[in-house]
Amino acid sequence: MSQESRSDYSEGDLRKTGMALKHERTWDYELDRIVEAVEERGAEKVGLQFPEGLKRRAPHVADDLRELLPEGTRVLISGQPCYGACDLDTYMMRRTDVFVHFGHSPMKESDKIIYVPLFSNVEVEPIMQESLAELSDPEEDPHVGLVTTAQHMNKFEEMKAWLGDRGYEVHTRRGDDRLTHEGQVLGCNYASADIDADQVLYVGGGKFHPLGLAMEHPEKTVVIADPVNNVVTVADTEKFLKQRYGAVHRAMDAETWGVVFCTKIGQGRWEVANDIVENNENAYLLTMDEVTPDRLTQFGFDAYVNTGCPRITTDDGPQFKQPMLTPGEYQIAVGEEPLDSLSFDTFHGTW
Amino acid sequence: MSQESRSDYSEGDLRKTGMALKHERTWDYELDRIVEAVEERGAEKVGLQFPEGLKRRAPHVADDLRELLPEGTRVLISGQPCYGACDLDTYMMRRTDVFVHFGHSPMKESDKIIYVPLFSNVEVEPIMQESLAELSDPEEDPHVGLVTTAQHMNKFEEMKAWLGDRGYEVHTRRGDDRLTHEGQVLGCNYASADIDADQVLYVGGGKFHPLGLAMEHPEKTVVIADPVNNVVTVADTEKFLKQRYGAVHRAMDAETWGVVFCTKIGQGRWEVANDIVENNENAYLLTMDEVTPDRLTQFGFDAYVNTGCPRITTDDGPQFKQPMLTPGEYQIAVGEEPLDSLSFDTFHGTW
Repeated sequence: MSQESRSDYSEGDLRKTGMALKHERTWDYELDRIVEAVEERGAEKVGLQFPEGLKRRAPHVADDLRELLPEGTRVLISGQPCYGACDLDTYMMRRTDVFVHFGHSPMKESDKIIYVPLFSNVEVEPIMQESLAELSDPEEDPHVGLVTTAQHMNKFEEMKAWLGDRGYEVHTRRGDDRLTHEGQVLGCNYASADIDADQVLYVGGGKFHPLGLAMEHPEKTVVIADPVNNVVTVADTEKFLKQRYGAVHRAMDAETWGVVFCTKIGQGRWEVANDIVENNENAYLLTMDEVTPDRLTQFGFDAYVNTGCPRITTDDGPQFKQPMLTPGEYQIAVGEEPLDSLSFDTFHGTW
Repeated sequence: MSQESRSDYSEGDLRKTGMALKHERTWDYELDRIVEAVEERGAEKVGLQFPEGLKRRAPHVADDLRELLPEGTRVLISGQPCYGACDLDTYMMRRTDVFVHFGHSPMKESDKIIYVPLFSNVEVEPIMQESLAELSDPEEDPHVGLVTTAQHMNKFEEMKAWLGDRGYEVHTRRGDDRLTHEGQVLGCNYASADIDADQVLYVGGGKFHPLGLAMEHPEKTVVIADPVNNVVTVADTEKFLKQRYGAVHRAMDAETWGVVFCTKIGQGRWEVANDIVENNENAYLLTMDEVTPDRLTQFGFDAYVNTGCPRITTDDGPQFKQPMLTPGEYQIAVGEEPLDSLSFDTFHGTW
């Protein structure tokens, strides 16, 4: 099974984030902003990149754009898989006059890229009301962290005020350079939840993000208020952690290691990959963009370390025939670190 | 199923070309030439790219190289799929000081690339002897074309002389710019068989190449002398042709078309792709490197045209959920050309 279809089996199914809801939703594709850039630059080629769940909308957006654009402007749609702002189609970026990346907030601003965030229009207050049952009574413990994804960022102030009105002291922060907004989380970065509270409320679609959050902050209770699927749950990382310990143990017998350096623009950790091969003569550097079971198995290594997207390792790991570890897990498997140092792999900085 | 595993089901299975034989074979990886280039350039990073069937050898080649290279030289192995000299890992090429492409002959010479052809050491005369049963009696018709693949090129003069000794008039030519050697064929180019003979002898591993040859030259008898699998057969394109007609007919009802422009260095046909979208308002340009069922299906088009590698279309087509056509087949499906114009899609030029 290829990475393209990884949402078929991952616990934090991206199709449940509201990006791929079956019923019709209205997104603001900000076509005027695109048309303006095309006219300003006299662009001949316009490249559009959509995340997986929105690729099906691409032809319709292209139709709408073609009606607005000067005749002869060529619209190109990226067919590369795309899982985040870390995953820009750099080929398309270099070869189009205007390059539009939909559905993610900027990881790094650039004149070459128009980011269209696609904010969700779903109401958040009803599900926040339900989530109160899982949060502390504010009279006993008023401290609560608040995080969300890029899609629901447009409602962040509303969420904050709503909790404040109910007597909570809401803790928020902007994570690091990798994040655009205060309170924003990515699948690989939860620095915005480094706050002084024992509970964090995640308001947003799906379990993908809050599961990462709970793995990164095991000491905190992570309450999920999902306005897209209309459910409230508490993140449970037990299954994930068992899988991770299982993978580490299976990899302890490995003699040879394939060390993946990911070539995606925002997923490269050269120093991390290089350090491993420099210190292990049975480790080999593999470079690739998509990290899939087929691509790795070809090489016949006993185990793999993925220095690219940590969520492929943790969420899709069980689909790989050989154990695939994060860099931290690798250190445990080869005996450089104790087993209890196992922690979630996060990604910092831009590129 | 992803493109990476396409050899699992294609008629001309690449694993039967001798590139992935189970028994041990000796290849000349020309390590001295690589070491020399590294020393000359004071290279810090050496990139290695292998075709699919040889990826398993990569760690061993890396081991051998590391023993010969100055300490601290970093060896990188490309994890990208690779199906030909059209399919260079350009990311790796740009980011390493020495870039080595194994297993294919140059499609275009460049100072940036060291091509290591990996000639086969298999004997060709025994199987050529057997192939005489399928060739004409030279006293009746002495004309025979002779072609092979890059791997067996080292025996080409021997093959030619052997046929000459048996009374044949051997017709050979160098195809076009895309081909390095006289008598060489690629999966997408059979210009070397544009010769004045009704029969062509293909000496080489597998059916992948001779099946393409027989489709491109339906008027010729293509005899396959396969020294790797030790069999002689005559290429039979009937099954392939039925599939192609089937795909064209299924696509005749299509309202919307996804038109793939392949971003691999030697597989781009911009004019062909652009012409289609320019003349069909229901056609949309998709750009991608690997062309896989998952990647296409996401977009929800009724049918696809692949302007990249024709062999993905013809050999892997049945694995795609929607009909996928070559540019020529598209013209038939939309009524621009008659059904009997159906022909094999070939690729010319370099990049």
